[in-house]
Amino acid sequence: MDSTKASRHFAEELDTLKKRVVEMGRLVEERIQLAVHALIDRNLGETRTVVEGDTEIDQLQVEVDDRCFTLLALHQPMAIDLRSLVAAVKINSDLERVGDLAVNIAEATQRYLSHPRLPSLVDIPRMAELPLAMLHDALQSFISNNVALAQSVLDRDDTLDELKMEVFRDLLSYMLHDARTIEAALNLVLVSRHLERVGDHATNIAEDVIFIVAARDVRHVAAPPLTEARAH
Amino acid sequence: MDSTKASRHFAEELDTLKKRVVEMGRLVEERIQLAVHALIDRNLGETRTVVEGDTEIDQLQVEVDDRCFTLLALHQPMAIDLRSLVAAVKINSDLERVGDLAVNIAEATQRYLSHPRLPSLVDIPRMAELPLAMLHDALQSFISNNVALAQSVLDRDDTLDELKMEVFRDLLSYMLHDARTIEAALNLVLVSRHLERVGDHATNIAEDVIFIVAARDVRHVAAPPLTEARAH
Repeated sequence: MDSTKASRHFAEELDTLKKRVVEMGRLVEERIQLAVHALIDRNLGETRTVVEGDTEIDQLQVEVDDRCFTLLALHQPMAIDLRSLVAAVKINSDLERVGDLAVNIAEATQRYLSHPRLPSLVDIPRMAELPLAMLHDALQSFISNNVALAQSVLDRDDTLDELKMEVFRDLLSYMLHDARTIEAALNLVLVSRHLERVGDHATNIAEDVIFIVAARDVRHVAAPPLTEARAH
Repeated sequence: MDSTKASRHFAEELDTLKKRVVEMGRLVEERIQLAVHALIDRNLGETRTVVEGDTEIDQLQVEVDDRCFTLLALHQPMAIDLRSLVAAVKINSDLERVGDLAVNIAEATQRYLSHPRLPSLVDIPRMAELPLAMLHDALQSFISNNVALAQSVLDRDDTLDELKMEVFRDLLSYMLHDARTIEAALNLVLVSRHLERVGDHATNIAEDVIFIVAARDVRHVAAPPLTEARAH
């Protein structure tokens, strides 16, 4: 394979890989949505669906890691391509954890539903939208190397933190006014912390995207030219 | 540089890198220990030390990432060496999050100390020892490619989970018996969740070590021989 062909082949493979990462993101987003829907809808069946897991996500996770290591080993990429592949391994791992958080939310929902009903879910339904939008945009910024979009994900972290504290205050207020709400409210505190962590993972991904793109001009100076390295 | 020299140089660099990762682990372990000590000792000054952060950890994190990407770009390693380097980037990221968790524990401790004292810290001091030992052993397993030690970290996750539930039950019992304990107890619930997450990161690291070593015979078959790849 000459260097131009090798280079085009690599670019195609990297593009496919990124699409698979985004597909993995779509699947775990759906799990979070289902877990939150189960909470709002008081739907035990849906919590069980989430807790049982999703073999499609497990398979995709193995596939993405395989693609990354194969591309790293066979093409020996440099600079932005190298950083993109290492970031893909990290993002894959972040997405797996988001899948775990969907299970955590579903389990907290099961415990929540076993206690007397609270007057409301406070701001949890609204809070849930934010980390999902952050996760979605973080993955879009990854596929398009869009630093501005990645930065907008980081900027939303403060709003998520404020919502989390508001939810905490409201739930605390339930507990202080009526001890019979303590167990249900405690499980909603845990749900809000799991949602916060979905936002943390979106932030990790956005930071990786900024590193992929922004380090381009700083670090690849010492490395051999791109096509030469790929042609081996 | 001939291939033997290049190979020896790479092995030395990888060894130095691994030692820096373990040093980073030692520093974040110390932060968790200090945060837990501040809680046990009701020491606000120590919580502030943790919250202010540690520039040494920040610098080490950048240094470790730099070392990984430089080694990946210049030596284009294969198989177990490639997996070790990508794992080092992931482990570096896990350790950074453990540093963040030390800050979270210190902040929860500050809020805890602003409320009336609880009868006891329940089993939190004992619970704190487990994730720290897991983290320590996970890093030891990384430096020595010790799969059995990594597996022993994974095996301890269930015990940590049981301790977490025991702590939760005891704190809930305080809250149900005396509403004046609710705010202090809630902050201890959060501390116990942060400690659980330290264990999660230790588990991530142990899983990476198992992947580094166990994938050796499965995946490197398709890759070119080690010294040839390094000699470029």
